[in-house]
Amino acid sequence: MVIKDFKDVERVIAGEGAEKAYIRWLIGEKENPPNFYLRLVEIEPGGNSPYHQHNYEHEVFVIEGEGVIVDEEGKEHPISKGKAVYVPPSAKHQFKNTGKSILSFICVIPK
Amino acid sequence: MVIKDFKDVERVIAGEGAEKAYIRWLIGEKENPPNFYLRLVEIEPGGNSPYHQHNYEHEVFVIEGEGVIVDEEGKEHPISKGKAVYVPPSAKHQFKNTGKSILSFICVIPK
Repeated sequence: MVIKDFKDVERVIAGEGAEKAYIRWLIGEKENPPNFYLRLVEIEPGGNSPYHQHNYEHEVFVIEGEGVIVDEEGKEHPISKGKAVYVPPSAKHQFKNTGKSILSFICVIPK
Repeated sequence: MVIKDFKDVERVIAGEGAEKAYIRWLIGEKENPPNFYLRLVEIEPGGNSPYHQHNYEHEVFVIEGEGVIVDEEGKEHPISKGKAVYVPPSAKHQFKNTGKSILSFICVIPK
């Protein structure tokens, strides 16, 4: 069993096309879980993740903040604390922080 | 893409041995994701999940409340908002709410 505080996990930049967006790999290669990785994504006000697609899914739960998720047609859907989002494999998507404080959410991906 | 509020997902009792503990299957059979299910577990004050083991892992992130997770030796470890927990396959474990408000956490399991 491994227990850790999210603040003790390094923040890394959330890849090409990201602006003021960071990932903490809470349960990742170090724990070597068999099936999936648990990450905390943090986007600062005005920031965004890349508008992109990939062949794997996202399963998301919003912890705090206000923002939108952009869908495949470019339409924006509001998200806030308590919202769950399922992004199927290959669906284009982007997260944007439209609020005045940090937007943070759990984002699970397959290994 | 599916977006939903956790409050709109039915609460079900968290299995045999659970006391005042409930699960909301946020991304489950209905969404039919390829690899894993995203659940929100809610334990009321004084409640607990079963002390049990199974051949699959848990990946957990605490949303709110105060509690403990009991490990394989029966030792209790405090958990609160912002803590991530990795329970490997076959490790015996139990969650208990030791606070005065609800303990809620994301708990991801393989499909």
